[in-house]
Amino acid sequence: MNKFHKVIIDTKGTDKGPLEIISGVAAALEAHESLAVLLVGDRELLEKETEARGMPKERVEILDAPGEITNYDNPADAVFRKTDSSMIKALAKLAEDEELCGMISGGNTGAFIAGSIRYLSRPDRTRPALAAIFPSVSGGYTCLVDTGATVDCTPQMLVQFAKLGSEFMRDSYKIESPRVGLLSNGSESTKGNKVVKETHQLLVDAEDINFIGNIEGCNAFSGDCDVLVCDGFAGNQVLKVTEGTATRIITDVVKYAKKTESPEIMKLVGHLMSLYDISSLGGGIILGSRKPLIKIRGSSGKDAIVNTSEMLINIAENRKAFNKGQDKI
Amino acid sequence: MNKFHKVIIDTKGTDKGPLEIISGVAAALEAHESLAVLLVGDRELLEKETEARGMPKERVEILDAPGEITNYDNPADAVFRKTDSSMIKALAKLAEDEELCGMISGGNTGAFIAGSIRYLSRPDRTRPALAAIFPSVSGGYTCLVDTGATVDCTPQMLVQFAKLGSEFMRDSYKIESPRVGLLSNGSESTKGNKVVKETHQLLVDAEDINFIGNIEGCNAFSGDCDVLVCDGFAGNQVLKVTEGTATRIITDVVKYAKKTESPEIMKLVGHLMSLYDISSLGGGIILGSRKPLIKIRGSSGKDAIVNTSEMLINIAENRKAFNKGQDKI
Repeated sequence: MNKFHKVIIDTKGTDKGPLEIISGVAAALEAHESLAVLLVGDRELLEKETEARGMPKERVEILDAPGEITNYDNPADAVFRKTDSSMIKALAKLAEDEELCGMISGGNTGAFIAGSIRYLSRPDRTRPALAAIFPSVSGGYTCLVDTGATVDCTPQMLVQFAKLGSEFMRDSYKIESPRVGLLSNGSESTKGNKVVKETHQLLVDAEDINFIGNIEGCNAFSGDCDVLVCDGFAGNQVLKVTEGTATRIITDVVKYAKKTESPEIMKLVGHLMSLYDISSLGGGIILGSRKPLIKIRGSSGKDAIVNTSEMLINIAENRKAFNKGQDKI
Repeated sequence: MNKFHKVIIDTKGTDKGPLEIISGVAAALEAHESLAVLLVGDRELLEKETEARGMPKERVEILDAPGEITNYDNPADAVFRKTDSSMIKALAKLAEDEELCGMISGGNTGAFIAGSIRYLSRPDRTRPALAAIFPSVSGGYTCLVDTGATVDCTPQMLVQFAKLGSEFMRDSYKIESPRVGLLSNGSESTKGNKVVKETHQLLVDAEDINFIGNIEGCNAFSGDCDVLVCDGFAGNQVLKVTEGTATRIITDVVKYAKKTESPEIMKLVGHLMSLYDISSLGGGIILGSRKPLIKIRGSSGKDAIVNTSEMLINIAENRKAFNKGQDKI
């Protein structure tokens, strides 16, 4: 049994380039003693940079991948044609190497999902969903699923998202029976569009889901539920409207700070930035594949690597604790 | 020609009761010299209170309505059974009295919409939509439509919402050719669920709509468009997530202010509250009826009456300026 949790990391495909990812890896190795990494990308660059930063050799391996999938590539196409890309080589390796416990990539989201279907589908062919994790007002976290992978959903798909989100919150945060809410336009069970109303009834009837009822957008992250279920169109709105509103208000506070030249308010800006820095929360998580896959934003900085590698370590440890290793999924 | 713009105001159906509405009316009459009101509610109370506050008699009339529609009433039912309620009496009066230029109510939204269909439908039987007005980053306003009246929409309905929103922004803010955006999960024309993709093409083809393309949730109020079109389910999320996020961040700032006891930050709280006090923005507007109908929130304070009566005055004046009086609609 390996004493490390080994994570495979795609070093290409982000806006800020491989060096930012490598800095993140260095910080993550320092922050998490049980972390080991397999870096995928240009061997020469990776060898030079890991050496220059003095990364511990016993915890760093490199897999050469000359190709790259960009955001201009058609996802399904790229998965089949760009097999020398860092993303696809990483997914193929993750699928066959039992030691690897999960993957982090900042590349093309669609290709990451399509690739997960090709290489890491579960035996029951679960449809993958893209989740986001938000800190809730009450101090915990809420898993919003789906945030854009599937924009036209049937009630059955939404029930599946509820199961995947529950599984993720159990594995990541040790919540035994995650509370599942259904995003709607009112908290009453009669509220919702056609699909949401049908889903509501299915969730009430599902014995293996701890369904607590409808949740309105204003309470999305109030901490009332651990998993918030919606179709990818609505979820994308929740995600982006939250982000847009937070950015806007923080910009207003910055303007006010500049006008008043108050050092107190400048300090407050720092405080708010740390609370609402969505990029440091780790971006999206692909649920439903055989191993956990984390999509960090294309614009992510090194904090994203530190935080998401911690998430993968937690999942690996908790799955072991729950006595359900990856091989059982 | 009457020199006043006369607005009919439902004094019942709000959480804070008639006295709060009456205070709002007093403030609105003071703020807007051209405003006259017809107050609908308990005659005795209204006579006593308008007298006690010394409201100008030539600008205040009263219509007695002993009944009330509550939020527990079934909307469609209430419209037909509660004809002695303040809301229904006001709608009936508004429909027959040419002098009245619009209505304000804080009562049951569903009943207000159902009542507007019964009493103020346009000859072409336009389906009403519920819009919200948000201040945009660029200093203007954005009309979000629909925010919850119709949660399952066809592409044709969304095109109709684009027209209604454009008409409203012309009439309220004198924008000659309002820029219409379509809410989607990506700015590219290929993004969206099935209904949004079909709507996109219809909007491209519509010659009487100034369509500028898809808008993502993070840019909903960036000022890129004057009208943002979506179905009532998504619109409800945009509205409530914006509100929830703003409330949350302002709460964080208040906590921080208390902890640091900084008077500078307390002042900032006041500044943010004034920027993001959604209740003062006037709540929802029912589009598609023969005369403008404004729904203020059940929890609204007097600012809502001051702001929404100004909106109705502007619409009346601009419609006159555009040479399209109410009788032509």
